[in-house]
Amino acid sequence: MRVEIWSDIACPWCYIGKARFEKGLADFAHRDQVEVVHRSFELDPGRAKGDTAPVVDMLALKYGRSREEAQAMEEHVASNARSEGLGYRTEGRDHGNTFDIHRLLHLAKARGRQDALLDLAYRANFAEERSVFDAEVLVELAVEAGLDADEARAVLTDEDAYADDVRTDEREAAELGANGVPFFVLDRRYGISGGQPAELFTQALEQAWQGRTLTPVAVDGADAPTCDTDGSCEVPQH
Amino acid sequence: MRVEIWSDIACPWCYIGKARFEKGLADFAHRDQVEVVHRSFELDPGRAKGDTAPVVDMLALKYGRSREEAQAMEEHVASNARSEGLGYRTEGRDHGNTFDIHRLLHLAKARGRQDALLDLAYRANFAEERSVFDAEVLVELAVEAGLDADEARAVLTDEDAYADDVRTDEREAAELGANGVPFFVLDRRYGISGGQPAELFTQALEQAWQGRTLTPVAVDGADAPTCDTDGSCEVPQH
Repeated sequence: MRVEIWSDIACPWCYIGKARFEKGLADFAHRDQVEVVHRSFELDPGRAKGDTAPVVDMLALKYGRSREEAQAMEEHVASNARSEGLGYRTEGRDHGNTFDIHRLLHLAKARGRQDALLDLAYRANFAEERSVFDAEVLVELAVEAGLDADEARAVLTDEDAYADDVRTDEREAAELGANGVPFFVLDRRYGISGGQPAELFTQALEQAWQGRTLTPVAVDGADAPTCDTDGSCEVPQH
Repeated sequence: MRVEIWSDIACPWCYIGKARFEKGLADFAHRDQVEVVHRSFELDPGRAKGDTAPVVDMLALKYGRSREEAQAMEEHVASNARSEGLGYRTEGRDHGNTFDIHRLLHLAKARGRQDALLDLAYRANFAEERSVFDAEVLVELAVEAGLDADEARAVLTDEDAYADDVRTDEREAAELGANGVPFFVLDRRYGISGGQPAELFTQALEQAWQGRTLTPVAVDGADAPTCDTDGSCEVPQH
């Protein structure tokens, strides 16, 4: 079974939801047969690269609240994070454009290091407040995830590198009806929106597991030669 | 959309079916949104490693035919291959256990080079008759596919490396009802057995594309916080 998770590094509920999903997965009997794939979703794709702002200021501006009220919103999210055992600092974090991080996550995917980089990037952003909008921090994270520094730097410098992969993920999210993240898709059959409790993920995995059936594609009189485990290769007769 | 293809390097209809699928895919409008994944399937898992035999002798023995009749069966398959533009030599090819090749294909998957290695291994086996049952040939193919020679050799030497990945693929094939290969699965919804004509693959891709809908997982009163593209992160009220 395969689970795709659309998320953004800038999204605290994605950070929390990933931890909750992983707890739910750990309680799923067939967890060894589950493949998890990260998909790109930008919360603020229109923001210019390099245009960063402190998260609390951004929240206050967006919601028309005082800085203290915005700070309280962050504290509420932080308490949810901490109850999952995640570090969460509520001061000093920046908001910005995450396109480059998603491109780097696609390089990591191609090298089999995507989940490692994703965890490191979340931790940097939320717990350590190393700026994920700083290219040199991203290179450091890539190296910590086991990627080659020069290769990571080359991807960050070439703004076309893996750009199509990010956009394809985002188009698929839209086609699947996702307006927000995290968004979890199980075997392209079941959709789960939001940073749900761990138990719900376990239940959803069980539901999807039971529902696995394939529809044979209708074939009218076409040759369909196969090789079978008895060693024979069927040869159509003409 | 995602297509998984269960196949074995030792299976001529997998070699031919891959070419036909790729032609079918080339005619599919949304081909840029299709991800193709190779899955492992051994035709002869019970055969001991190192126990190889000429394919024509194996066919004659299995079907109780003369060597000439077995040769004619190979010629029939060869004509199918050639009509797809594929090289196919009908002499000198060996049959054997393909477990190590599948383990190496999983290394290649982790390094983003799986399709390249698969094509090279098919060509070596069917067109060039380089023995894919020879570990040094496999290392050469791995290097041609862009993998590191030492890493490939280490995987081949350690018989546990990627062994679970091969077995997981094979268990999934059985669960999905595949008794033979090639076996194509579209978004875990549609199954196609055999080296079908290219047009059938195009039709099946179109059918699967139209049928893409997600079932929302039922949520009763649970908090489901998300961050949305308007920039807001919904905070559940307690």
